[in-house]
Amino acid sequence: MSALFAGRMQNTQKSFIREILKVTEDPEVISFAGGLPNPNFFPVEALAEVSAKVLAQDGRRVLQYSTTAGYQPLRELIAQRYANQGLVIDPDEILIINGSQQGLDLVGKLFLEAGDRVILERPGYLGAIQAFSLYEPEFVPVSLEVDGPHLAELEAALSQSRLKLFYTVPNFQNPSGLTYTEAKRRAVAELVRQRDLIVVEDNPYGELRFTGEDAPSLKSFLGEQTVLLGSFSKVVAPGLRLGWICASPAIMDKLIVAKQAVDLHSNYFSQRVVAQFLLDHDLEAHLEQIRALYRRQCELMVSLMDELFPPEVTFTRPEGGMFIWVTLPEGISSMDLFERAAQRKVVFVPGSPFYVDGGGHNTLRLNFSNADEARIETGMIRLVEAMKEVLAQPRPVV
Amino acid sequence: MSALFAGRMQNTQKSFIREILKVTEDPEVISFAGGLPNPNFFPVEALAEVSAKVLAQDGRRVLQYSTTAGYQPLRELIAQRYANQGLVIDPDEILIINGSQQGLDLVGKLFLEAGDRVILERPGYLGAIQAFSLYEPEFVPVSLEVDGPHLAELEAALSQSRLKLFYTVPNFQNPSGLTYTEAKRRAVAELVRQRDLIVVEDNPYGELRFTGEDAPSLKSFLGEQTVLLGSFSKVVAPGLRLGWICASPAIMDKLIVAKQAVDLHSNYFSQRVVAQFLLDHDLEAHLEQIRALYRRQCELMVSLMDELFPPEVTFTRPEGGMFIWVTLPEGISSMDLFERAAQRKVVFVPGSPFYVDGGGHNTLRLNFSNADEARIETGMIRLVEAMKEVLAQPRPVV
Repeated sequence: MSALFAGRMQNTQKSFIREILKVTEDPEVISFAGGLPNPNFFPVEALAEVSAKVLAQDGRRVLQYSTTAGYQPLRELIAQRYANQGLVIDPDEILIINGSQQGLDLVGKLFLEAGDRVILERPGYLGAIQAFSLYEPEFVPVSLEVDGPHLAELEAALSQSRLKLFYTVPNFQNPSGLTYTEAKRRAVAELVRQRDLIVVEDNPYGELRFTGEDAPSLKSFLGEQTVLLGSFSKVVAPGLRLGWICASPAIMDKLIVAKQAVDLHSNYFSQRVVAQFLLDHDLEAHLEQIRALYRRQCELMVSLMDELFPPEVTFTRPEGGMFIWVTLPEGISSMDLFERAAQRKVVFVPGSPFYVDGGGHNTLRLNFSNADEARIETGMIRLVEAMKEVLAQPRPVV
Repeated sequence: MSALFAGRMQNTQKSFIREILKVTEDPEVISFAGGLPNPNFFPVEALAEVSAKVLAQDGRRVLQYSTTAGYQPLRELIAQRYANQGLVIDPDEILIINGSQQGLDLVGKLFLEAGDRVILERPGYLGAIQAFSLYEPEFVPVSLEVDGPHLAELEAALSQSRLKLFYTVPNFQNPSGLTYTEAKRRAVAELVRQRDLIVVEDNPYGELRFTGEDAPSLKSFLGEQTVLLGSFSKVVAPGLRLGWICASPAIMDKLIVAKQAVDLHSNYFSQRVVAQFLLDHDLEAHLEQIRALYRRQCELMVSLMDELFPPEVTFTRPEGGMFIWVTLPEGISSMDLFERAAQRKVVFVPGSPFYVDGGGHNTLRLNFSNADEARIETGMIRLVEAMKEVLAQPRPVV
């Protein structure tokens, strides 16, 4: 029977990260592994209030089938939030989807045939690697530097044939925590402009900046060449699985066809709940609380790393988002570190799954959003113990 | 830029049915077009109550990311309902998805490569045609008779190469309203058994039987050769976009990988809401009310058709579900009828989109669930007027 599976499914494996998350069911394990927002800041009471309201006021419609594009007032609210950031997007250029992850699958469906090329950051977002992989493209990784992609590598990548997409997370990237500077954004736009490929700009963390200044979106430079993804997962709640995709009318027509084929439309009750939440509550004030919390947790983690990590271990210093990226010395395996850390009941995500070209064995991702200060302190102490143990091992000569 | 689209998207069109539904925004239009459940029977108050309950009791978890497979107690409740019907399904063989429509996309992703063959009922469910089409298979239609598929045609279809799937809706099929008899199910199972293809048994309407006796599911004969799809859309509410897919462990492993790639997991809040609804409320009593309503509406529609339709127009007599299928005389176009009917403010779905081989121009689908008795009477009178007008036209010699 396994001969019946399509070629695209033959070599798939369960996500290593998902497997790791099973370890974290033990409450004594301190996890810096998941990419989970802090649930203490979910607006539980506000969502209960607006859920009751939309069901009481319009229950029969809220529970019925609805349009594929999504609830129009919700699309208008999203457009309004972009307008506040100086980005003009028509509500008809917005499609409501099941978290921005679904946007990756839909973009794959629209554009990718086996052997087409996708430019990806190195390290790159694992969810994008997984979604696109099922369309069997060739990935072209471009190294991330502290201020954005390596421009010469990007230029070389852009000279390749069969290019379809450049997938990028310019703000507080997952997994690296790095952010493109405005200068790098302009340089990237200059290189990409008028090339025949789509820039997929994924921005789930953009509103979680806790230090520094916002830089303009790539879409503000590249317009209709950009498909922009957004998500309510990090600003309201991920369990509702709501995000959106902004695209030019020609692409939107195809997206609607694809969305209709894959699940007709996104959960309409949740769309109404989130729209009512945005109308009745102050999202900006809510975001201020989240940012303050994440800033405290990130600063604590970074200061512990400054204090405790051996100097040969380097790491990023995020201005927002949820992740810090750690690089061990060459030849030191983050999988070895993972095993020793797990014995001490602290876990993280080893970095190699974020590399499509087999690199990154000495890297790892730490999440600082889904913890508290006490657990961050204890977890860092445990992690450093494991790290020192691994670094004390005899090393292969590089 | 349109050269960037993948081949699978080049010839797609917006759904004609979705376009029709726009006409129905005029409240004077009586619509027998959509496939909508009757919203008067949505359990609005019960869902409000359980929504408040799950948020109050477990809000932070309910709103967080969750497992790809779905909420375990919900999968156990679904397994229990199958057990009540005599079908043994392990909860681990159940994946929660966004309505059964998503199951079609996932099955396509798992099995279909361009040029693979999919056996389909003729007429066939449009949502399946749309979902599978994006994987570019060859469809092999098998005519539906009043008791199930035409067996000689099915046997011929099964002799073709590159077969992957047989997609079937054995209960109150969409669009025909027809149901496979037990004898036909046994005969189908006999033909299909030990052939190297998957039977995709879609059963969104199975619990909406209002007359006659349940027949065993194809899965009860074919076991792991079957992928079984179910949905809460017709028994609880479609706006929540929740359904499920049952498959053997080898297929389930791949389904989990694909589901994770396309949207991580289905809306967890809604999963918890539906599970709590099933625990706290009597779904069986709720279904009895729906069945009684649909039976009344179906019987009224059929009796009006018996009374008013010209004798050369034939139609099916459903034992459940939501649809009646009408066949006009050869050479009479249901698109012509549609235009004249729409002028009289009554609409339906012309049949040709349900045919993958260009037939069915003289057929149409009527929905009886989403109306009331007064609108069914008025609508039928309008439809018959339009019908008589079309039948009075000079006809091409057949």
